[in-house]
Amino acid sequence: MTTPAPLLLALDFGGTKLTAAMTRPGRGGWLAHRRFFTPATADGPYEYNKMLALAGELIAEVGRPAAIGVSFGGPVDAAAGLVRLSHHVPGWENVPLADRLRDTFGLPVAVDNDANVAALGEYRFGAGRGCQNLLYVTVSTGIGGGWILNGQPYRGADGMAGEIGHTIVQTGGLPCVCGRRGCLEAEACGPGIANRARLYLEQNAGQGDALLRLAQGDPQNITAKMVAEAASAGDPFSRRVLVESARRLGLGLGNAINLMNPDRVVLGGGVTKSGELWWQTVREAARANVLPEISVNIVPAAFTDDAPLWGAVALAEQVAG
Amino acid sequence: MTTPAPLLLALDFGGTKLTAAMTRPGRGGWLAHRRFFTPATADGPYEYNKMLALAGELIAEVGRPAAIGVSFGGPVDAAAGLVRLSHHVPGWENVPLADRLRDTFGLPVAVDNDANVAALGEYRFGAGRGCQNLLYVTVSTGIGGGWILNGQPYRGADGMAGEIGHTIVQTGGLPCVCGRRGCLEAEACGPGIANRARLYLEQNAGQGDALLRLAQGDPQNITAKMVAEAASAGDPFSRRVLVESARRLGLGLGNAINLMNPDRVVLGGGVTKSGELWWQTVREAARANVLPEISVNIVPAAFTDDAPLWGAVALAEQVAG
Repeated sequence: MTTPAPLLLALDFGGTKLTAAMTRPGRGGWLAHRRFFTPATADGPYEYNKMLALAGELIAEVGRPAAIGVSFGGPVDAAAGLVRLSHHVPGWENVPLADRLRDTFGLPVAVDNDANVAALGEYRFGAGRGCQNLLYVTVSTGIGGGWILNGQPYRGADGMAGEIGHTIVQTGGLPCVCGRRGCLEAEACGPGIANRARLYLEQNAGQGDALLRLAQGDPQNITAKMVAEAASAGDPFSRRVLVESARRLGLGLGNAINLMNPDRVVLGGGVTKSGELWWQTVREAARANVLPEISVNIVPAAFTDDAPLWGAVALAEQVAG
Repeated sequence: MTTPAPLLLALDFGGTKLTAAMTRPGRGGWLAHRRFFTPATADGPYEYNKMLALAGELIAEVGRPAAIGVSFGGPVDAAAGLVRLSHHVPGWENVPLADRLRDTFGLPVAVDNDANVAALGEYRFGAGRGCQNLLYVTVSTGIGGGWILNGQPYRGADGMAGEIGHTIVQTGGLPCVCGRRGCLEAEACGPGIANRARLYLEQNAGQGDALLRLAQGDPQNITAKMVAEAASAGDPFSRRVLVESARRLGLGLGNAINLMNPDRVVLGGGVTKSGELWWQTVREAARANVLPEISVNIVPAAFTDDAPLWGAVALAEQVAG
């Protein structure tokens, strides 16, 4: 007879929402799950208290967990369990989140940032199972990454490893929120795809009608999703926008693959729903930019919104003892 | 009373030379050292037999070592101790080098490629001491790299990690031996610096006299060393060539630092002797390309020609038991 897997509590502090869920790893899905969309006026103490309430509900409903794993959407000192700040929500500066939760619940707690945690979730439960060395990249409103190396999260000297979004893939390319040009994020994230569409519209008067119709005539309405839709419907202009962005992503992934030779690259985030043309272009561009002796193995993430949450389960598992 | 450090034999199969040396780690330099420049007609069996002779001489002179560490200048399956091939010398295809040396000498043997081994040498005995996460980059006739992560050599899925020389740093840049354009190697290695000087000479008739004089009037004679010399003497043309190449190197290192956030980057190879302007430009360009939260710490290697040899000592140490 084997001991039943321990009950684990996973918390995800996202940019716009809080999620809490309870599971026993290996038993499939969630035993209970709560999501709360935070108002734009929320600050750190508000989010913390709201999350305590969600966690309390789950414990009342399912029972006392063996440990708590936490994903936080911002820079974290994982070893100290310390949140450094949130780029989205004020009042998260230097919050000792692991200590606070430990004091409140009397349970072991582990905290890490969302990209590292998502990498761990894919490694432990998703598309990265069986890998020793894994790069997880989320392609969404930004581009972030996390590493599993030798079967363990790799965080780097300042806990900042994985910033593939700010590697340069295009000399003098599109402007990035970080102030430089040609960062992978600027060239290939969702808003970057929309920016490229607007740029090509300016440069090519009379083109892009199919896309403009989806945007109700206003280029400012264009989203990456519209570009993917128009491309899937065969619009040549949108196909070109999508292919160029996917090529830059393939180049950035190729650089990372040449440098680190991972077993597998797992891609998550909304932009990965852009269809077969996007996937094929990303893979071909990566392969073309990698030395022939090096394997290129790029696969879709198993989890979408829930990747950090499953990673938080894996974090909790590590401290559950 | 402490046990004396074991006697270790280090072998380095370089592109153009064989080196063997014996040491006791922690006792300073070499107890004995032999170097042999291989003729252009040499093949794998020739080099292997010549190295056996060098090793035999050292053992006769100093005594029987506790283990043998081997650096090989080409792709190696380190786990199997298998040389895959040499890009310089024929007849090295799939040679079980560790097994052969083990059978011949009856000693533990470890083999790895020169970049990984040099990284290990700097980590254990040189400019990487005290780091947990280290990127070693040699900037020479090519550009290669090796990783120490969590205090251990990191080799990647195919043993090919560290190919920073073939990450792209310039869209549509200088042609590379790998067939692509704008690889870091093509943009910043020694022959790349000379190529850039020739390109700028073509594009700017009447400039570069100081450099051309060093090259005795023939652009084909230009070397990276001449560019560095003329730049140090204040020649504006050569300074521009050197700065542009150093900027590309800084960008390539910046990409690697964003991606992996190492504690330290150690630079070795002949091009690192190009003077203060080169170093300052590399560091500034790296810093400018890295997110503000991430440390940038780029230092010169402690070893020049002997880096693989000291790394081979560290390899031998690991298997000496």
